[in-house]
Amino acid sequence: MAISNIRYGEGVTKEVGMDLQNLGARRVCLMTDKNLSQLPPVNAVLNSLAKYGINFQMYDNVRVEPTDQSFLDAIEFAKKGEFDAYVAVGGGSVIDTCKAANLYASSPTSDFLDYVNAPIGKGKPVTVPLKPLVAVPTTAGTGSETTGVAIFDFKELKVKTGIASRAIKPTLGIIDPLHTLSMPERIVANSGFDVLCHALESYTALPYNMRSPCPSNPINRPAYQGSNPISDVWALHALRIVAKYLKRAIRNPEDREARANMHLASAFAGIGFGNAGVHLCHGMSYPISGLVKTYKPKDYNVDHSLVPHGLSVVLTSPAVFAFTAQIHPERHLEAAEILGADIRTARIKDAGFILADTLRKFLFDLNVDDGLAAIGYSKADIPALVKGTLPQARVTKLSPRPQTEEDLSALFEASMKLY
Amino acid sequence: MAISNIRYGEGVTKEVGMDLQNLGARRVCLMTDKNLSQLPPVNAVLNSLAKYGINFQMYDNVRVEPTDQSFLDAIEFAKKGEFDAYVAVGGGSVIDTCKAANLYASSPTSDFLDYVNAPIGKGKPVTVPLKPLVAVPTTAGTGSETTGVAIFDFKELKVKTGIASRAIKPTLGIIDPLHTLSMPERIVANSGFDVLCHALESYTALPYNMRSPCPSNPINRPAYQGSNPISDVWALHALRIVAKYLKRAIRNPEDREARANMHLASAFAGIGFGNAGVHLCHGMSYPISGLVKTYKPKDYNVDHSLVPHGLSVVLTSPAVFAFTAQIHPERHLEAAEILGADIRTARIKDAGFILADTLRKFLFDLNVDDGLAAIGYSKADIPALVKGTLPQARVTKLSPRPQTEEDLSALFEASMKLY
Ligand SMILES: NC(=O)c1ccc[n+]([C@@H]2O[C@H](COP(=O)([O-])OP(=O)(O)OC[C@H]3O[C@@H](n4cnc5c(N)ncnc54)[C@H](O)[C@@H]3O)[C@@H](O)[C@H]2O)c1
Ligand SMILES: NC(=O)c1ccc[n+]([C@@H]2O[C@H](COP(=O)([O-])OP(=O)(O)OC[C@H]3O[C@@H](n4cnc5c(N)ncnc54)[C@H](O)[C@@H]3O)[C@@H](O)[C@H]2O)c1
Ligand SMILES: [Fe+2]
Ligand SMILES: [Fe+2]
Repeated sequence: MAISNIRYGEGVTKEVGMDLQNLGARRVCLMTDKNLSQLPPVNAVLNSLAKYGINFQMYDNVRVEPTDQSFLDAIEFAKKGEFDAYVAVGGGSVIDTCKAANLYASSPTSDFLDYVNAPIGKGKPVTVPLKPLVAVPTTAGTGSETTGVAIFDFKELKVKTGIASRAIKPTLGIIDPLHTLSMPERIVANSGFDVLCHALESYTALPYNMRSPCPSNPINRPAYQGSNPISDVWALHALRIVAKYLKRAIRNPEDREARANMHLASAFAGIGFGNAGVHLCHGMSYPISGLVKTYKPKDYNVDHSLVPHGLSVVLTSPAVFAFTAQIHPERHLEAAEILGADIRTARIKDAGFILADTLRKFLFDLNVDDGLAAIGYSKADIPALVKGTLPQARVTKLSPRPQTEEDLSALFEASMKLY
Repeated sequence: MAISNIRYGEGVTKEVGMDLQNLGARRVCLMTDKNLSQLPPVNAVLNSLAKYGINFQMYDNVRVEPTDQSFLDAIEFAKKGEFDAYVAVGGGSVIDTCKAANLYASSPTSDFLDYVNAPIGKGKPVTVPLKPLVAVPTTAGTGSETTGVAIFDFKELKVKTGIASRAIKPTLGIIDPLHTLSMPERIVANSGFDVLCHALESYTALPYNMRSPCPSNPINRPAYQGSNPISDVWALHALRIVAKYLKRAIRNPEDREARANMHLASAFAGIGFGNAGVHLCHGMSYPISGLVKTYKPKDYNVDHSLVPHGLSVVLTSPAVFAFTAQIHPERHLEAAEILGADIRTARIKDAGFILADTLRKFLFDLNVDDGLAAIGYSKADIPALVKGTLPQARVTKLSPRPQTEEDLSALFEASMKLY
C-alpha cells in the first residue's frame, strides 16, 4: 500500500511557499471555494505565497459538493493556466476538484469519461505524469489529502461517482490544525461523521485476502484492497480519536486539542480507507447526495440545496452495521466498545444491534437529523435510491456481506427514521 | 513524513517477477548473503524471476553486519552490472548493502564519503535519480524495507555509521511472513530486539516540536524528525505486537501467527522510527558492534566475530530508559505496562526503574547474554565505547534527555551486567 506525505503542526502552512519553491514551481494554481477565500486558511496560504514571491492565480469557483460541470469549469481554468503546481485549500470539495483539474490539464486530449470510475466512465489507468499538488485541508473529514480519490455528482445521471487512481494523490498534505478553528458547528459535525464512517467501514470491509477477483498482476489491483493489518491500525486509531474528541470538537470551537486531534484523525482514517476501501454507507450515500431535493443544511454558506457528504454517509450507518455484523461480529463489537458501549455482558450475536444502538445514541446526542425522512426522502424514493447505489459496486462489493436489491431497499427503509 | 509502499501476505513473493516487469526492468541485480542464498526465501524469488523471464545477476557476497569494504565490493558489482532495478532478499545487512549499491551506481562519480552521515562523511543530499529497489525482508527486525537508512561498520574508525536519505528508501517492500519460518532461534530473538528498541526509542524520542535547530526550509530537515503523533501510532502498535508475540516467535519456529506478526511489527516500527528517529540505545550500539572482539553469536552462520545489531541495541536498554524516563515518565510507564508490568500502584517517578526492570526480566526470560561483560567488554573499554558514541550525534541528540560524556560512561557501566 502507498501512503502520502504529510506535514503536521500548528502554523506549518506558513511554509507552503517554500515547498512550492522547492518543487521548482513558477506558475501556481491556488484553488479554494468562495466561502473559504474570505477566511483565515486561505489568508495564511496567500501570506506564504507572497513571502516567497510565488507567482500564482487563484480559482475560488469550486462548488461545495462538486458536480461534473464544476469539475469541468476548474479543468478549463487549469488547462488555460498552464500551471506547474497546484495548491488546494479547503475541504474535500476543493481538494477533489483540484485533483481532477491537475489530472485533465496533464492529459489534455482525454475525454472526461476516460478516467471516471467504471461502469459510469471508462476507468482508464492514468499513465501521464501529473504536476505536484499540495493539499491543505480545512475540514476534519475527508482525508482527501491522503487519498487518490476525487468525488463528484454526475448531474444527468443524478448519481455521485468519482475518479480513483494513485496518480492523483497529493504530493504533500499540510495538516495545520489552526485551520479547523474557523469551522462552524455543523461542518465540524458532518465532516467528523465522514471520519467516523471511513474508520468503521474500512475496519469492517471485506478482508484483503477474501476479495475477488484478485488480478494476478499487482499493477491491476484496485486502490481499494479490502481491510488489512495495516489499514486496521489506522482505522482503529482514528476511531479512538473520534470517540474521544468528536463531541468536544463540535461543541466547543475553542477546544484546540479536540479540533487538532480530529484534524489528524481525518488523515489517519483517510490513509486507512484509502487502502482498505469503504463499503455500504459510502455506496448508499452517493444517491442520497445525488438525489437531494430541497435540503439546505445549517452552517453551509452556499446557495444550492445539498446533503453534506458526512451526513449522507452517517444516516445509514446504524442500519448498515446491523446488517454487516453477522460477518465480523467481534470487530463490530470492538467498534461499539470504542464508541462507548459497555460490552461486558454483551453476546457476540448482538454485535450489530449493539453497534447500531451506540451509533444512534451518538447521533442523537449531536442533534443529527432524524434519518432520511428528515432530509426530505420518503418510501417512494427508495427504488431510485437503490438504483443509484447499484453502479457503486466499486465500493459496495467491499461490504463483508453481499447484498441484494431487496437488502439495499431494506437498509434505506430502516434509515428513514433513527430515533 | 513519507512512508514506503509495502505489500503483505503469505506467498506474495511469487509476484516479484511481475513487479519487476511492471517496473520495466531488463537487467536486475539480485542481492543476498551466502547463507540465505541456500534458503527458501531466495529460492522463492528465483522461481518468480524464472517464471517471468527476468534477466538477472545474483550477488551473494553481502557481509552480515556490513563494512565500508563490503559496501564497496557490492557497489563495484552494481556499477559493472549497469542494472536497471534491484531486488534485495535478506535481513538489514542485505537490504542496506543494496541501498548503497543502488545509490553509488546511480551516482558513479561520487566519492564514498560524499553521502555518509556527517561528521564522519560529508552527508551530501542525494539529488541523482536511483533505480527501483524491491526489498524482501527475511528477518523480523530492522524494518529496512521501509526506511531511507543504510548502516555499515567503518573499519578504520572502528565505528558504525550510515547513509540516511529518503532517496534510498526501497520502492516496494514485500513482506511475506513465510520467509521468517527458516530463521533460527537467536536470529528471531536478536532481530526482534531491534524491533523492540525501534519502538521504545521512537516513542520516547525528543518530540518533533522541541528539536533544534529546526531548519526553516522543510527540504533541509533531517529524516529523523523526533517523536510525533503519527510515529507514535506505529511505535505503540509495534510495541504491543512485540509484547504479545516475540517470546512465542522465538520459542516456537512453527508458530506462524507469532512469526507473521513480528514480521509486520518490524515494518511498523520501521515506519515509526524511520520518521521519528531512534536515540541512545542505537547511538551506543554502534561502538558496541564496531569494537567487537571475539564474540561469535549462536545461530549466525558466518566466519567473523560480530555483535548482532539487535543484541547491541538491547543490552543497554535497561540503563538507557532508566536514564531518559525523567523527561517523559508517563510514556516510559505506558511502555512498561504494554510489556507486562503491573503499574496499578506505580509512582510516576519510578517509571524509569519500572521500565528497566521490565526489560531485564524480558531479556532474562529469553536467555540473553548477561550484559556487555558477557560479550567481551570490561570497564577498561568504556572510554573507547564513549568515544565511539560521540560521532553518533545524529541519533543521540534525539534522546529526550541531553547527555554528557560522564552520562554515557555511566550508561555503559550500568550495562556491563544485567541480572
Ligand atoms: N477524496 C476523498 O477521498 C473523499 C473522501 C470523502 C469525501 N469526499 C468528498 O469531499 C466532499 C466533502 O468535503 P468536506 O466534508 O471536507 O467539506 P466541503 O469541502 O464540501 O466543505 C463544506 C463547507 O465547509 C466550508 N469550510 C471548509 N473548511 C472550513 C473552515 N476551516 N472554516 C469555515 N468553513 C469551512 C466550505 O467553504 C464549505 O461551505 C464531498 O464531495 C465528498 O464526496 C472525498
Ligand atoms: N536500514 C535500517 O533502517 C536499519 C535499521 C536497523 C538495523 N540495521 C542494520 O541491519 C543489520 C542487521 O540486520 P538483521 O538484524 O536483519 O540481520 P542480518 O541481515 O545481519 O542477518 C543476520 C543473519 O541472519 C541470517 N538470516 C536472515 N534471514 C534469515 C532467514 N529467513 N532464515 C535463516 N537465516 C536468515 C542471515 O543470513 C545472517 O546470517 C545491521 O547492520 C544493522 O545495523 C539497519
Ligand atoms: Fe467519505
Ligand atoms: Fe536498529
